Amino acid sequence: MDHIIIGGVAGGMSAATRLRRLDEDARITVIERSGHVSFANCGLPYHVGGVIEDRESLLLQTPASLGRRFGLDVRVGTEAVRIDRERRVVVVRELATGAVSELPYDQVLLSPGARPVRPPIPGIERALSLRDIEDTDALVTASAPARTAVIIGGGFIGLELAENLTRRGIAVTVVEAADQVMAPLDPEMVAPVQDHLRANGVALRLGASVTAIGPDSVTLSSGEQLEADLVVAAVGVRPDTRLAEDAGLETGRLGGILVDSRFRTSDPRILAVGDAVEKRDALDGEQVLVPLANTANRQGRMAADVMAGLSAHDRPVLGTAIVGIFGLRVATTGWNEKRLVAAGRPHRVVHTHPSSHATYYPGAEEMSLKLLVDRDTDAILGAQGVGREGVDKRIDVIATAIAGGITASALADLELAYAPQFGSAKDPVNLLGYVAGNLRTGVTRSLQWHELDDALAAGAVLVDVRTAEEHAAGAIPGALLVPVDELRQRLDEIPPGPVVVHCEVGQRGHTAAQVLTHAGREARNLDGGYRTWHAGTSARKLVPVG
Amino acid sequence: MDHIIIGGVAGGMSAATRLRRLDEDARITVIERSGHVSFANCGLPYHVGGVIEDRESLLLQTPASLGRRFGLDVRVGTEAVRIDRERRVVVVRELATGAVSELPYDQVLLSPGARPVRPPIPGIERALSLRDIEDTDALVTASAPARTAVIIGGGFIGLELAENLTRRGIAVTVVEAADQVMAPLDPEMVAPVQDHLRANGVALRLGASVTAIGPDSVTLSSGEQLEADLVVAAVGVRPDTRLAEDAGLETGRLGGILVDSRFRTSDPRILAVGDAVEKRDALDGEQVLVPLANTANRQGRMAADVMAGLSAHDRPVLGTAIVGIFGLRVATTGWNEKRLVAAGRPHRVVHTHPSSHATYYPGAEEMSLKLLVDRDTDAILGAQGVGREGVDKRIDVIATAIAGGITASALADLELAYAPQFGSAKDPVNLLGYVAGNLRTGVTRSLQWHELDDALAAGAVLVDVRTAEEHAAGAIPGALLVPVDELRQRLDEIPPGPVVVHCEVGQRGHTAAQVLTHAGREARNLDGGYRTWHAGTSARKLVPVG
Repeated sequence: MDHIIIGGVAGGMSAATRLRRLDEDARITVIERSGHVSFANCGLPYHVGGVIEDRESLLLQTPASLGRRFGLDVRVGTEAVRIDRERRVVVVRELATGAVSELPYDQVLLSPGARPVRPPIPGIERALSLRDIEDTDALVTASAPARTAVIIGGGFIGLELAENLTRRGIAVTVVEAADQVMAPLDPEMVAPVQDHLRANGVALRLGASVTAIGPDSVTLSSGEQLEADLVVAAVGVRPDTRLAEDAGLETGRLGGILVDSRFRTSDPRILAVGDAVEKRDALDGEQVLVPLANTANRQGRMAADVMAGLSAHDRPVLGTAIVGIFGLRVATTGWNEKRLVAAGRPHRVVHTHPSSHATYYPGAEEMSLKLLVDRDTDAILGAQGVGREGVDKRIDVIATAIAGGITASALADLELAYAPQFGSAKDPVNLLGYVAGNLRTGVTRSLQWHELDDALAAGAVLVDVRTAEEHAAGAIPGALLVPVDELRQRLDEIPPGPVVVHCEVGQRGHTAAQVLTHAGREARNLDGGYRTWHAGTSARKLVPVG
Repeated sequence: MDHIIIGGVAGGMSAATRLRRLDEDARITVIERSGHVSFANCGLPYHVGGVIEDRESLLLQTPASLGRRFGLDVRVGTEAVRIDRERRVVVVRELATGAVSELPYDQVLLSPGARPVRPPIPGIERALSLRDIEDTDALVTASAPARTAVIIGGGFIGLELAENLTRRGIAVTVVEAADQVMAPLDPEMVAPVQDHLRANGVALRLGASVTAIGPDSVTLSSGEQLEADLVVAAVGVRPDTRLAEDAGLETGRLGGILVDSRFRTSDPRILAVGDAVEKRDALDGEQVLVPLANTANRQGRMAADVMAGLSAHDRPVLGTAIVGIFGLRVATTGWNEKRLVAAGRPHRVVHTHPSSHATYYPGAEEMSLKLLVDRDTDAILGAQGVGREGVDKRIDVIATAIAGGITASALADLELAYAPQFGSAKDPVNLLGYVAGNLRTGVTRSLQWHELDDALAAGAVLVDVRTAEEHAAGAIPGALLVPVDELRQRLDEIPPGPVVVHCEVGQRGHTAAQVLTHAGREARNLDGGYRTWHAGTSARKLVPVG
């Protein structure tokens, strides 16, 4: 059997090595346009910043090492020009010599990845992008003399580069067309991330676009001119479908290659995986683009199983992701609230601000978690986490719970490893389950930060049940202060009508809401407390520039 | 309604506060024999070691604060003497005054916890134990002048105390009757833990017991005499059932209070939770004792739901646990191999030694994972992890997968948050799934470290496929060195007969086994490689003292 794998990074290389372990006799050829295969894609920004000092450590394998270990014929600097499906050959060209040849195939796997989008801005030629080792080298070279940089795009790669260029002493501005960075997060979750970026010296221009790139500056839609020795375009990626389209393979309306659950394109001899293909969403089964390395790796390995004749079926994707931003860990899984609202899907929301581990053990750090729950079925629809230690753990546990069909309320029952250095006897994930269960069974009612204005306008009384000191340090306008520990004695001070209570993070508010409810009052607890309200309203109050 | 809760720590206090939030009108009285409620049970060893410097931070709540916040009548220093079920009163005695009184009840919740076992050794009066704040104070006082300590028992608390007394400059010896510390771990997983304890100055006496405790030494079964300014008994705990038994409530054959899935004892007006009750095992449904804080907390909260008339049912327990040992994280969930073997349950075993995060990103640390899988159903039966960063995360993910009914092979499909600082594109949990899947589908065959001797005796050839340098640094006796990258060319050097291949951690061995299998050889890969074999055989070779 002749197998040709086009694209030698995450998906392609996972497929090639797996295929060899399943079939010692096959001829397996890997075609890679860039000069390197199997490089550490997700490490590239950190080489730019010098965190990964040694460039060689990005090169996990070489054509020679792959030849020795796996008997692979790996051809770098080689472009797949065309797939001739009739004659079953892939036409390839060596970039250095221009030599063209034909490789016969029984099966082809397309793993070409995605290309950085290059926005049609005058002067865009000067903007660098980050996709491969060559791009990385160019960025390292260009950043050495640079004092200022503008990064167009506030997504994962844009922010990783913002951190790493800052590390090099460069003054970085991120220009983002949306009114927040990191689209996968909801606004109240992203607010502390944006604060943290600014605190670390990164300037943000939100709701702004670049209209022109000059030789040493960029011009924004607002007219503002930003100095920019270096310009990086990181506005997203687009499936690399040239080869597939030229070969007449079907693509979807999102612009990715269409494959079935066994990764077969419209030509069953040609499979495709990774950032180039459209995937099926785990929540609604719709087509989605999820350009993530872990998904590409998994798909590559499964496609090899298919190519070798084993049983293998892809699963719909949740899109669990994480990014480190100046020490902050920001992770998400599933859908966010924006998307649920847009889809009109009835949902419940839970915000918490737990500690990474027992507060009495030194080093505990606060995190913020958000859980999104199906209002009808109690299914977990998504989660977001922002903090430091342990954020990745909680999002991974929730992603696993979603995969296992564990309901939001049942998170309360998970038995997670507890010692005071590592968690709490009631882990943050269990706490999310407690709150979700209370909402589901009607034990308590909550109000979201963005619903407060309407509730107050409709005549609700807002009661701050924190201490006088906390209230003095920052309060929601119009809130009446009645500390929770005095509430039972001071019930008659609360004016008639529905009541919204709040504390700092939501826990005392829960107790207060219960006291009020049992006293015959209609009471709701402000979800996530002052902390979430403050984050949400400060995000909303941001005056977009441009 | 009059609710009396006996025991004011994990389970009892979770119940009391939850009950108040569900029922503002109930009279809730908490009876606690010691001088403190709601103290940080799991933090006690770390106060002894000075990690948690401030004693006050162990006291999460006081009777006064609980009175103010939750309207609880909390009575510390008060013993529940007797439950008179006929007259529905609990007889209590104030320890300071001896004053006896009767408290009427509608419902009682027993959460008395477990008592440290005091082995019947001459001189045991001198041994301290660790259960409450008073014990902690005593240990702090006694350890101040001590230069040497003997800890009887190498379980979680024994080892936490070993670390914390070492921190105080005390020379610690742990005496353990079994031939390993930490019974929940299998021997090859515990070997590095024991090495680490010794490297940190803790002496171990395994397979040894204390026969006598003198005024400044202890005598072991071997005759050895150990200096011991301080002696601690940490040989385990036993459900505190005195009150329950006196009241004629049913107890089980393991010595715990028997309750149904709604925590009701044989008297439906009396509920019980926590370390004092027998639980149902998640794997076989049998009764078990699982004295863990997270379980006690969860049960307490659910028992409050039952007492308040809500729907709530306990779940069987997995017993997920973790302990920190001089920076090492040691975590387990579900059953271990010893228990599966003893129960005759057909299983598969997977050992891996992955990195905590991508190796090309600085700071990656190796961990060891073990997965136990049902041979018939592919269900996950248990897991163990030893390492540093990220061990807790992987065990939590696996515990969640078990709860969600995710099979071992399906761990491969979990979408976990990946960036190079936090994981790998193929996460260690995914890798366990890959190996489990390969074993299940017969793509590969493996051999366990303890099966090697028999295989060799039966005529198998052992091939080390590592590099010559690795081989020279430590090899399995009799292994033939053929590096994996040369294997295809040197197949004819391998003598006839079945082959066992091994590398350092199992990954290259897998590739080598595939090469050999395709060449028509009967080949098995030594699971976990040299690393697991070395750990397992070094554990086995330990000469028990005593």
